[in-house]
Amino acid sequence: MKIGIIGSGVVAQTLGTKWIGQAHDVVIGTRDPSKLDEKKMLGTTLREWLAQTENRGKVVTFQEAAKHGEILVNATSGNVSVDALRLAGADQVGDKILIEVANELDHSKGRPPRTLASQDRCLAEKIQAEFPNLKVVKTLNTINAAVMVNPQGLAGGDHTVFVSGNDAAAKSQVKDILKGLGWTDILDLGDISTARGPEMYMALWLRLWGATGTGNVNVKVQR
Amino acid sequence: MKIGIIGSGVVAQTLGTKWIGQAHDVVIGTRDPSKLDEKKMLGTTLREWLAQTENRGKVVTFQEAAKHGEILVNATSGNVSVDALRLAGADQVGDKILIEVANELDHSKGRPPRTLASQDRCLAEKIQAEFPNLKVVKTLNTINAAVMVNPQGLAGGDHTVFVSGNDAAAKSQVKDILKGLGWTDILDLGDISTARGPEMYMALWLRLWGATGTGNVNVKVQR
Repeated sequence: MKIGIIGSGVVAQTLGTKWIGQAHDVVIGTRDPSKLDEKKMLGTTLREWLAQTENRGKVVTFQEAAKHGEILVNATSGNVSVDALRLAGADQVGDKILIEVANELDHSKGRPPRTLASQDRCLAEKIQAEFPNLKVVKTLNTINAAVMVNPQGLAGGDHTVFVSGNDAAAKSQVKDILKGLGWTDILDLGDISTARGPEMYMALWLRLWGATGTGNVNVKVQR
Repeated sequence: MKIGIIGSGVVAQTLGTKWIGQAHDVVIGTRDPSKLDEKKMLGTTLREWLAQTENRGKVVTFQEAAKHGEILVNATSGNVSVDALRLAGADQVGDKILIEVANELDHSKGRPPRTLASQDRCLAEKIQAEFPNLKVVKTLNTINAAVMVNPQGLAGGDHTVFVSGNDAAAKSQVKDILKGLGWTDILDLGDISTARGPEMYMALWLRLWGATGTGNVNVKVQR
């Protein structure tokens, strides 16, 4: 499968490496692909990432990543996601599936960062409104990168990942991709407006991290 | 133990009944205690509640409830909590422990209700700021009334309740009360500002209810 990841930080790199290991054809899109030696927050430089993938991965522009992917991934910081997708271009993102994993956080006022999501501010809805043809599926924003690609590494995989989106076929395909990452408890919350739930949950996740001392933490929905 | 519950809806009634069954001395405080036959949202009338408790419970004013309780509980709708506590009176609530279980929801725009909590709007912090001597402990706002008093009824009790508050001794006492309700996984998130987490989580809980079709749902924090 051809996957175009918009964004180049730790989430993009971790998902990219995992999918390359599964023989997918992955590119990472970044604002300036010539800056291979820039240290990414929590991640390695893109030169190091390319080396890790034994040069099976590629680093390209946002636009080239959007063109490349049959499936797109938004792994930018939530604060710049809409800008990055605009740079990728509405004609390139088209009516593809966008796996939308970002959170809008404000790091300017100390730790923990402030979770900007609210009933009136939902990144997934904002992206869907800006790109109405895009099949936005919100998922994976409720765990850190390590848990995203290795759910079995936490409590034997006995915890939950959420999906929200308007297009049933797109959600079905994303669920298969999640299963491919090792997820067994995938809970479909409903249309894209339900993404407010997992986005606002980030405020709790940040406190779980604080209270448990580990970012390797997630919730199992008992029902 | 003398418990004064501020609020008289289903949460107040359910907690009250449970604690009366444990031989605590419980009063429910309401705006107008003479209105015993008014149907409460999701609950019974207070006359029916009194009958259920075999008249061991009492229905009194907010002020009398605050005076009665060694431990206070805020079980009002989040939207009127500060008003109700003002009516109870700063001199009556004093420096007691307040178990704060409310959520601010907006039911005016259809279902699910909108969760009003955000990084800039946290009910527990608002109450703590308004009554600086009160020992506010946020807890139990992340589940419905049935699960609050019978955690074993869901997944054998294998799920999590949170506490947030500034006073360690108050939190310790509230944890004992939670254990008395049957809770085994009690996660202390930190000071009162951490209540933003469980309050914003309500937006996810409402979608869990929608997606699973049951309000008997909660999360287990896997760590």
